[in-house]
Amino acid sequence: MTRSYAVLGAGAVGGYYGARLAAAGHEVSFVARSDVDHLRREGLLVESPGGDIRLPEVAAFAAPEEVPPVDVVLVGLKGGVPNPAAELLPAMLHDGTVVVTLQNGLGIEEELAPVVGDRPLLGGLCFICSNKVGPGHVRHLDYGLVSLGQHGAAGATETVRAVAADLERAGVPVQVEDDLLLARWKKLIWNVPFNGLSVVLGALPGDLLAHPGARALVVSIMDEVRLGAAAFGRVIPDEFVEGLLATTERMTPYKTSMLLDYESGRPVEAETILGNPVRAAASKGVDLPLIQALYRQVTYLDARNRAAWRADGSAG
Amino acid sequence: MTRSYAVLGAGAVGGYYGARLAAAGHEVSFVARSDVDHLRREGLLVESPGGDIRLPEVAAFAAPEEVPPVDVVLVGLKGGVPNPAAELLPAMLHDGTVVVTLQNGLGIEEELAPVVGDRPLLGGLCFICSNKVGPGHVRHLDYGLVSLGQHGAAGATETVRAVAADLERAGVPVQVEDDLLLARWKKLIWNVPFNGLSVVLGALPGDLLAHPGARALVVSIMDEVRLGAAAFGRVIPDEFVEGLLATTERMTPYKTSMLLDYESGRPVEAETILGNPVRAAASKGVDLPLIQALYRQVTYLDARNRAAWRADGSAG
Repeated sequence: MTRSYAVLGAGAVGGYYGARLAAAGHEVSFVARSDVDHLRREGLLVESPGGDIRLPEVAAFAAPEEVPPVDVVLVGLKGGVPNPAAELLPAMLHDGTVVVTLQNGLGIEEELAPVVGDRPLLGGLCFICSNKVGPGHVRHLDYGLVSLGQHGAAGATETVRAVAADLERAGVPVQVEDDLLLARWKKLIWNVPFNGLSVVLGALPGDLLAHPGARALVVSIMDEVRLGAAAFGRVIPDEFVEGLLATTERMTPYKTSMLLDYESGRPVEAETILGNPVRAAASKGVDLPLIQALYRQVTYLDARNRAAWRADGSAG
Repeated sequence: MTRSYAVLGAGAVGGYYGARLAAAGHEVSFVARSDVDHLRREGLLVESPGGDIRLPEVAAFAAPEEVPPVDVVLVGLKGGVPNPAAELLPAMLHDGTVVVTLQNGLGIEEELAPVVGDRPLLGGLCFICSNKVGPGHVRHLDYGLVSLGQHGAAGATETVRAVAADLERAGVPVQVEDDLLLARWKKLIWNVPFNGLSVVLGALPGDLLAHPGARALVVSIMDEVRLGAAAFGRVIPDEFVEGLLATTERMTPYKTSMLLDYESGRPVEAETILGNPVRAAASKGVDLPLIQALYRQVTYLDARNRAAWRADGSAG
């Protein structure tokens, strides 16, 4: 039996993974806000260096209540505090519904767990470079691995294995995580400095690493993320950070997702990527002053940016 | 006998105070680089809300060796590490020449003292809002007080009293400082957060104070400046900081000098205002991580900015 999926959000992340699952033969419903008419009329297009995916007929819904029951709900919405998925999920939860949140940052499962109840709740960390370039139109540029783990469970549970198998058959590389919280902190080691500084300094990751002062700042921020992880008993070794710096230097120069959001006047994921790590560490008595400063800088810029876009009558 | 002055630099600070002293009857020579021909031909114009000052004939020199001996040298050059005045001063120093540096930041006297030798070395902290708007053309917008103290001496020495009297007769309010180092750290309480963040966030002081996150960041940075001061035994009380915040909220909205420099593609005073406090505190075993982060952000932006201006063939 092929598992059915519903995807909350048809953007850069939900649109991409949902389209791959649909192309692999799964029934996939999309819950979208502004794009629902476009999706019904024109379908979904994912341009990808590995081959474009065109779904001329898409089951698109404006509200979660309209979605027929599915086996797995993928949360492809942007993160935020409160999590916008918390309101939308209940109508889609039935006996045994699996929830996989693809949202970035920290504290995601902790916030969704009370909503999901005793159903399996998975986190999928997406290492992907993709943009939504228009309604029903996603451009996948590079990468795509999903790092998958189950909240409150260790290793390859049956549910993790099943979802991983679906993704892999759909052409998505999956890495199963024994410890989802450790995986989230590890992803933050990259996301906190590069997303945050990309907005504040208008810079690509490689630009930052090429300037000795900015590079030293990146490394100091990474060290603070490690302090936060350590407050939760998660040890991230030096070699991981060194490897990440070396990999980032070799990357094709892409704008971070936070910079793309910022430049388009969309809200940036400051709360989940920057604010939640600071708050989580503080709850353990650990200060992360550099990340808190970065968080404050980004929220200042984000507020001013969105006010300016609103004044122009554009973006959301 | 009227004391004679020479001013190194005919910009926003040196041009303003030099013009006031000249208008009050002092012989004032100016040492300027690019503006020397303009100054000789057209003189110096200071527009000021308190009345414009026009000096049609200015003794302008391209090199310090050409300046006839004077009683007092005012250093009106921008700060930097190394201090650009250190090279220019020796040719102007004679028996008893007084040096008054009007440069911003920390470590200024410490760097000039070996050059000045046993002559009196004064520091004048300028609380002024003025811009150089063209060759030989300074626009004074607001304020103008000079906080004056002698390096390595306490209180109103004879030299401090003499220079203060000259400035006051020229219409410049003067506050005599018992402790020049304390005065420098106090000025940094404003300069570090507002100059630094104005460049990084493209914001005016009042904009920062109106946003709760940015305001909290300003206050945290001010607290770090106080830590730096404390490392040198200088205590800056809470009330001083509270008063400064309240005053800043009431200020007419002006761009900081660092933001004006940045927007014009000129080098910003990152080393003396941000780098030197970090290095001074570090020499006492005290870390100032937020100021260090701000310093790194500003030096990154400054390097990129000047490279862009150089590519355009503009500014210096």
